[in-house]
Amino acid sequence: MNKQTLFKNIEQKQSFLCIGLDVDIEKIPAHIKQLPDAIFQFNKAIIDATHTYCVAYKPNTAFYECYGVSGWQALQQTIDYIKQNYPDQFIIADAKRGDIGNTSAMYAQAFFKHMQADAVTVAPYMGADSVKPFLNFSDKWVVLLALTSNSSAADFQLQTLADTQPLYKHVLHQSLQWGNADNMMYVVGATQAPLLAEIRKIIPQHFLLVPGVGAQGGSLAEVAQYGLNSSCGLLVNASRSIIYASNDLSFAKAAGREAQKMQLEMAYLLQKFS
Amino acid sequence: MNKQTLFKNIEQKQSFLCIGLDVDIEKIPAHIKQLPDAIFQFNKAIIDATHTYCVAYKPNTAFYECYGVSGWQALQQTIDYIKQNYPDQFIIADAKRGDIGNTSAMYAQAFFKHMQADAVTVAPYMGADSVKPFLNFSDKWVVLLALTSNSSAADFQLQTLADTQPLYKHVLHQSLQWGNADNMMYVVGATQAPLLAEIRKIIPQHFLLVPGVGAQGGSLAEVAQYGLNSSCGLLVNASRSIIYASNDLSFAKAAGREAQKMQLEMAYLLQKFS
Repeated sequence: MNKQTLFKNIEQKQSFLCIGLDVDIEKIPAHIKQLPDAIFQFNKAIIDATHTYCVAYKPNTAFYECYGVSGWQALQQTIDYIKQNYPDQFIIADAKRGDIGNTSAMYAQAFFKHMQADAVTVAPYMGADSVKPFLNFSDKWVVLLALTSNSSAADFQLQTLADTQPLYKHVLHQSLQWGNADNMMYVVGATQAPLLAEIRKIIPQHFLLVPGVGAQGGSLAEVAQYGLNSSCGLLVNASRSIIYASNDLSFAKAAGREAQKMQLEMAYLLQKFS
Repeated sequence: MNKQTLFKNIEQKQSFLCIGLDVDIEKIPAHIKQLPDAIFQFNKAIIDATHTYCVAYKPNTAFYECYGVSGWQALQQTIDYIKQNYPDQFIIADAKRGDIGNTSAMYAQAFFKHMQADAVTVAPYMGADSVKPFLNFSDKWVVLLALTSNSSAADFQLQTLADTQPLYKHVLHQSLQWGNADNMMYVVGATQAPLLAEIRKIIPQHFLLVPGVGAQGGSLAEVAQYGLNSSCGLLVNASRSIIYASNDLSFAKAAGREAQKMQLEMAYLLQKFS
């Protein structure tokens, strides 16, 4: 999916909500848990109940890999279901991959060709040649980790370099030489919202994938205030607060209500800051 | 596997060779390629022909994920085969994972519990809470990316911080607070061998996983000279130079010969620097 289509979907739905499909089998309702394809059935119900209110889904690969082969089956089944039934959804494989060039090329094959995701999250530590192989696919995206939502982001990302900028800003500057606003996005945690104004000075046009609203405590209003740009430029992710809104028979309806709540706030924020 | 057992295996085999199972289906011999479980059959033949000369195998997850579900099947089948037939081999899932705490906990489940690997490679960019969940398993290991073998390591890892040390050294110092020489190793590329003496000042006792000998051009002798410690402290990886030594009917024998060549050099180096 290209940037124009993504923005068109955001305008139509008045939503920049991305729903994280981080499915922990221990947390899903008992009547679903007993099914042979429980994870897929849970995802299917969540997707059917929430697709109106969001523009993207972000399955986190860890939550599938932990079940081995059957987990990868559920992941592929979930993505196939979204693509067949809701082809306007932007699909982000949240995989945090990145390796030397010939290996990143294989990861790009895995997520773009085999899995048919629109985007994949990539860790920058290994530098240019670990990221560039992902940029060779048209209408596919790298979502590069810049400033993550966890408190340990301070360990390295906020470390100051000798030229007085923190590492994450160096990642932003450096990666501008690798791709552009049509094939790269950046992860910036909602818990880092006060730094968004500075980040926007470096990458005014890029989309940001923003986790950390909801369970992690970031503020959507603050993210919108400092992060929105002329083509929205934000995908705000919520996972646990939506998919585990309830764990009884009406879990999907509850997820839909939570997604709608966020969509309504987003519609308000899109008006307010446009 | 604990450090004592790993060292015992190294002494017995006079080898600190790790063989990377980065299987590209385009590069495997035609008579194997036509089999329904070609990747596993290729691995099985390579493992049977090389196990005498190495102490570890390192399947790189990218080369399996690129085939989706069937790739994960081949990966699990390969690990199961090694564990059943050669239980003294140390198995490293080269996965370069790392995410916020609850997600890294799922990756740890995936690789340590489900897949039964001994170690997993982890990217440090997200900091302490992305690494610590992997350290909660006894006799299992984190192999943290420190200074990788690719030229783009210069983009971030070699950047100087305000306190005048490069980022990779900060990663070493910081991570010493998370684990110890019994549950953490570090990736240091063979192409970075001249820096090994400095690295050994910070982490004298830890094992290092060293890729970049062979296809990437690093020198085994130089790695041994600066990297060996009193319990060897090195696992040197070779992938392409061994597994693609030949692509005719005798590919496995050729792989065995290449592995043996490295083992013999290692036996010599172990004597020389002990």
